[in-house]
Amino acid sequence: MTGFSFSIAATDGRARTGAIHTPRGEIRTPAFMPVGTAATVKAMLPESVRATGADILLGNTYHLMLRPGAERVARLGGLHRFMNWERPILTDSGGFQVMSLSDLRKLTEEGVRFKSHVDGSEHFLSPERSMEIQRLLGSDIVMCFDECPALPATEARVAESMRMSMRWAERSRAAFGDRPGYALFGIQQGGVSKDLRAESAEALTRIGFEGYAIGGLAVGEGQEAMFGVLDYAPDMLPADRPRYLMGVGKPDDIVGAVQRGVDMMDCVLPSRSGRTGQAWTRRGQLNLKNARHAEDPRPLDEDCACPACRGYSRAYLHHVYRSSEIIASMLLTWHNLHYFQDLMAGLRGAIAEGRLDDFVKDFHALRAEGDIERL
Amino acid sequence: MTGFSFSIAATDGRARTGAIHTPRGEIRTPAFMPVGTAATVKAMLPESVRATGADILLGNTYHLMLRPGAERVARLGGLHRFMNWERPILTDSGGFQVMSLSDLRKLTEEGVRFKSHVDGSEHFLSPERSMEIQRLLGSDIVMCFDECPALPATEARVAESMRMSMRWAERSRAAFGDRPGYALFGIQQGGVSKDLRAESAEALTRIGFEGYAIGGLAVGEGQEAMFGVLDYAPDMLPADRPRYLMGVGKPDDIVGAVQRGVDMMDCVLPSRSGRTGQAWTRRGQLNLKNARHAEDPRPLDEDCACPACRGYSRAYLHHVYRSSEIIASMLLTWHNLHYFQDLMAGLRGAIAEGRLDDFVKDFHALRAEGDIERL
Repeated sequence: MTGFSFSIAATDGRARTGAIHTPRGEIRTPAFMPVGTAATVKAMLPESVRATGADILLGNTYHLMLRPGAERVARLGGLHRFMNWERPILTDSGGFQVMSLSDLRKLTEEGVRFKSHVDGSEHFLSPERSMEIQRLLGSDIVMCFDECPALPATEARVAESMRMSMRWAERSRAAFGDRPGYALFGIQQGGVSKDLRAESAEALTRIGFEGYAIGGLAVGEGQEAMFGVLDYAPDMLPADRPRYLMGVGKPDDIVGAVQRGVDMMDCVLPSRSGRTGQAWTRRGQLNLKNARHAEDPRPLDEDCACPACRGYSRAYLHHVYRSSEIIASMLLTWHNLHYFQDLMAGLRGAIAEGRLDDFVKDFHALRAEGDIERL
Repeated sequence: MTGFSFSIAATDGRARTGAIHTPRGEIRTPAFMPVGTAATVKAMLPESVRATGADILLGNTYHLMLRPGAERVARLGGLHRFMNWERPILTDSGGFQVMSLSDLRKLTEEGVRFKSHVDGSEHFLSPERSMEIQRLLGSDIVMCFDECPALPATEARVAESMRMSMRWAERSRAAFGDRPGYALFGIQQGGVSKDLRAESAEALTRIGFEGYAIGGLAVGEGQEAMFGVLDYAPDMLPADRPRYLMGVGKPDDIVGAVQRGVDMMDCVLPSRSGRTGQAWTRRGQLNLKNARHAEDPRPLDEDCACPACRGYSRAYLHHVYRSSEIIASMLLTWHNLHYFQDLMAGLRGAIAEGRLDDFVKDFHALRAEGDIERL
């Protein structure tokens, strides 16, 4: 298999399970992609990320273009070799992060001019430059360069932004060119407006992409509003292509998204939470900084097979977190990524066996009886 | 083998190679002990520390008594279980660190009263309390509680301090009691005075210990002065017991100490250096923060088998160090510990085969032709 393709093995309601095939390996769907912003999933070695069950990582174009620079990564053999991860990588386009992280942005039809948050240097991103950067990085799944207005935004502003993103999607497709084995994904916008979502989906489908993302969600609108959009948005996109919900999410967000037909997700949550002393488990969240864990000999989750749960007590994790030891970030991140991948494996198995409703019921029941700490 | 014993397999000049046998496993000598101050070798999982070739870790009584507390560690099953390291652990007595780290010390014949640098709470350490703490931790090799005057110190002050440490050694021996399988080491003091070192060695030998440490060195006196003491001090101690040089050192310190009959050493250097972007190699030191590494595709050391050298370029290590990514500390610490253990294995092999002089000549020659950066 040298091309890029997607196959659906089973469906259960609107949920689907299958695999994305790429020259660098298979991505089992629904898939959760750990985020490796600056060419590392923070506090993890790549072989450990793989051991949690991850088939694909996400890299951030914005961060990598600023440091170490896309041309430099290319000269060093590409992002896979640079960060020692031989499996598929998806890169975002930089569009979202340039708007949220950089200083002094100037947005025009042509693209975005901005100053680096690292060293103040001036940079320019456009659909063409984003495609070039993602090609230099060697990304397997390339995202269209898009724009997403800050919330709250009027429907007129959302519409205007979405239409520019659709023009940029066309420019992205043209700039991407013909690259067998690599994929370009379009990004649906339109906020929480069904009409705009439909218009966006239609525009993207007309251009044609190897996969389709649902953008502009998980930006503070809340789960109810997000699920409201997911009740219709995935079905507007071609059923035979992977659907990627960007930036999601908490475990219950993931479960709800999969129920609504989403195939791929990414989020910094498991790794970021790990660095702030938070553990996600089947029974809810634990906040290891709390004194109640100081002498608790139990692992985070007695049924978890990750190294943190096999080798260490909550008391130890409390101690190393309180002592600002790096191993706290290492173990909690590993546990969280393991839990998220376990959840994905559970969802895939349930869909394959047509018992997703029961799986979801059990998922919520276990959390409800759990010992959840406010984070 | 359920007891504690030491066997010398071969000697070469004054250097010795052999093994310390303990119920928790064998310690190949000469041994380098990574430091796991607060129940973790910083930035490493214990299985990774083991993978570098470490047979034994050092834990710090001072840090552990303050956080999480010795009684708490005991209730959680002891330090080995707490930190997930089943092999031997040596703990220092707290004597050195209480003098260098704590606030408001009051030193009397009875012991030291001090305030914690963590939370300001009041604590007391004495030979008896130090023995109790090290027993609660479950340490395999327990160190006598001693005192070491800050440098510079008059010979009179050094003599007075050494004689109190010898009285404390007697109290330590009495308080340690009869614990088969566990060892108590005496600590020779006396600064750079041959007479005082002899007096101290005699006092310790009269009491009798399972092993003997050389204390009061590596505290800023310089390599020449240290080697000056090592030219005679080890031979003052019983030849059939392990000799442990505390707090040493750089690779060339280690080589010189082994040549002079030292069997065990410990130092924070490989792990601390790793966290500040420094790599130790057979060809000298590299400072990964330097811009010259930004596009260097070579590993730290082409002949090194550690994960950092097998998977990553200097350019990557430069990038992640500059980006303050945790993986920089993880990979550089791993490499440094691997290099230090490789060096110990090389020394052991050379002594066993009677070619230590050649080994040392090659060691220095490779460093001289190397590409050493100022740290």
